[in-house]
Amino acid sequence: MMTSFYPPQRTLMGPGPSDVHPRILAAMARPTIGHLDPLFVTMMDEVKALLQYAFQTENELTIAVSAPGSAGMETCFVNLLEAGDTVIVCQNGVFGGRMKENVERCGAIAIMVQDEWGRACDANKLEDALKAHPEARFVAFVHAETSTGAVTDVKAMCDIAHRYDCLTIVDAVTSLGGIPLYVDDWGVDVVYSGTQKCLSCTPGLSPVSFNAAALDVIKSRKTTVQSWFLDLNLVMGYWGTASKRSYHHTAPVNALYALHESLLLLKEEGLEQAWARHQQHHQALKAGIEALGLDFVVPVAERLPQLNAVCIPEGVDDGEVRRLLLEDYQLEIGAGLGVMAGKVWRIGLMGYACRKENIFKCLSALDDVLARLHAPVNHGVAIAAARAIYA
Amino acid sequence: MMTSFYPPQRTLMGPGPSDVHPRILAAMARPTIGHLDPLFVTMMDEVKALLQYAFQTENELTIAVSAPGSAGMETCFVNLLEAGDTVIVCQNGVFGGRMKENVERCGAIAIMVQDEWGRACDANKLEDALKAHPEARFVAFVHAETSTGAVTDVKAMCDIAHRYDCLTIVDAVTSLGGIPLYVDDWGVDVVYSGTQKCLSCTPGLSPVSFNAAALDVIKSRKTTVQSWFLDLNLVMGYWGTASKRSYHHTAPVNALYALHESLLLLKEEGLEQAWARHQQHHQALKAGIEALGLDFVVPVAERLPQLNAVCIPEGVDDGEVRRLLLEDYQLEIGAGLGVMAGKVWRIGLMGYACRKENIFKCLSALDDVLARLHAPVNHGVAIAAARAIYA
Repeated sequence: MMTSFYPPQRTLMGPGPSDVHPRILAAMARPTIGHLDPLFVTMMDEVKALLQYAFQTENELTIAVSAPGSAGMETCFVNLLEAGDTVIVCQNGVFGGRMKENVERCGAIAIMVQDEWGRACDANKLEDALKAHPEARFVAFVHAETSTGAVTDVKAMCDIAHRYDCLTIVDAVTSLGGIPLYVDDWGVDVVYSGTQKCLSCTPGLSPVSFNAAALDVIKSRKTTVQSWFLDLNLVMGYWGTASKRSYHHTAPVNALYALHESLLLLKEEGLEQAWARHQQHHQALKAGIEALGLDFVVPVAERLPQLNAVCIPEGVDDGEVRRLLLEDYQLEIGAGLGVMAGKVWRIGLMGYACRKENIFKCLSALDDVLARLHAPVNHGVAIAAARAIYA
Repeated sequence: MMTSFYPPQRTLMGPGPSDVHPRILAAMARPTIGHLDPLFVTMMDEVKALLQYAFQTENELTIAVSAPGSAGMETCFVNLLEAGDTVIVCQNGVFGGRMKENVERCGAIAIMVQDEWGRACDANKLEDALKAHPEARFVAFVHAETSTGAVTDVKAMCDIAHRYDCLTIVDAVTSLGGIPLYVDDWGVDVVYSGTQKCLSCTPGLSPVSFNAAALDVIKSRKTTVQSWFLDLNLVMGYWGTASKRSYHHTAPVNALYALHESLLLLKEEGLEQAWARHQQHHQALKAGIEALGLDFVVPVAERLPQLNAVCIPEGVDDGEVRRLLLEDYQLEIGAGLGVMAGKVWRIGLMGYACRKENIFKCLSALDDVLARLHAPVNHGVAIAAARAIYA
């Protein structure tokens, strides 16, 4: 006999979804209204303005795709690319590989620039590739690699791409709201993100933004976009000004209430303050992790505050640790992805999950579980090390 | 200064979204857990089982696509079709046209069989097309046309399609949960639906189901599916058995809580009982509408109970009527789509919105507003006519 599903109250410190702010959950449960209701249309306009703030952009075409981040990624590629186009994809983790998949499914050519997993993308390697491939029209890379916790210098990459007349497509799924991102100032032409990382919102939508140069490419396409659902020529009609709004698909109304509330929370806190908060709690977590004697995958200078890839000590059963954390502490941390499976844990400090009490909870839980499994770590010192950062 | 968005409590009697059951809104607001959490995986298995019940199918591949109905439609087409395939699309409204768009964006050929808007698809016309196009591999049509309110005989269409060795792709967005639909017994090979119609759930997900023959087509494709996000070879890994579950994209966790609850409500009521309820309240609405002196677009035998397309009396300002209903009664009814814009209203009786008090509310509100606008209708008799049906 099936019954209503009552999930437990977890603490989500994995790679996302992150803990959702109670105000956002409350917003989700408000009465559904029509997706063409004048009041809903007004709220969508506010979502656009709030997204412009979060992205630090004045791009008119700044909207939320009605599906998760992967669909946001696909929206960018299918709208910009045509068969035969060349795209340079700088890969330093799982999500660069997904970009390649997207490029190739558009019938375009992906020139892969491989960087070490756990390191930033190398702007010099990008320049070499641009020199070798003058036919390239686009450069794509990930700002904050969720699979490894490495941050790439967006401005440096965009500067080089533009020098070679390429437009840039940037994955900001894990960076938006967690670390500095200046879409306009840094010359990002196209960007996509997700709601379930540093925005602390429920998963299911993908904020995207396109500048005028990108819009020109879309408008001068010779071929139809291969996806009807993601075709921005149609989607724009729905997100357009109220007087010209046209039906495309039924918007996920309640999910947009949630996004609206999450962006409002970000605005209320202030972007800079949110970035500083992620940095501060990361420093505390880092102190605790190092006190335990564990290593980070990513060198300090290229390390994200909101996604901490920590090496699993030799002989420790990855799955057993995560199982015990979940069972005894209701605490979720992430497993490694791809080549890092079984070798690292990914501890997320994203959005609402990025709070002092969670740092202490995570460190004490990890300490306890590792002690029970007789892991070779320094017990009983992590909390004090973290506390010292807040002092 | 932007503030939290508090939507009004509307009564949604348009073409969808329909009124969402309070239990579903409550489910949406429960704490988010990880999309790979063992408890979430168990809930997804229940969603699959409940969808099999709703669709009346034993198809193993019965899941919810993480995006609205339009993406469910696209999932069906991009996974089954390859460039050069021929598809016969029977069109009797807006959504058959969207099917054509989808077919063509796959590089396939759409043979259009046009039926009158407001009528069912004609199985004889389909057979003529199949005779003329022996190269056709698929037949696609809409079960319940949301733009007109006409129902098509799914079994008759599938029988003919199969006689000519075609697989059937059926749009059940507005039919699921509202009128009889037997996916297995009627020989539907592929079906997609939406959550925001007769399931009374929030918009944003698309239930789909594929039988073994369809799965064979997918598995024997020569080319890669053009969409990464919608590629069932990848999506199946995520919806697969718990032991083999692999990460694809971050599922819209809270939206799936809502779908789970809505399907549970349907199971508790019973499919046949839900169908009977839609029929009963439709009869009452019909009596009231006819008492007002208004006409239906669709002939009785081909008319959906859950989507009532009513002709707007001459000289009456469509937009003004809908504006007054919304303003004074918090009541949303739908405008006409496509060629029917300005000529019809679409009154939805879907899922939780399909209740006796809504029939009376809608009829009295319409009567009042039409009186104020001096429309040539019979005032003061609609409610009594409706009440007589319930007697």
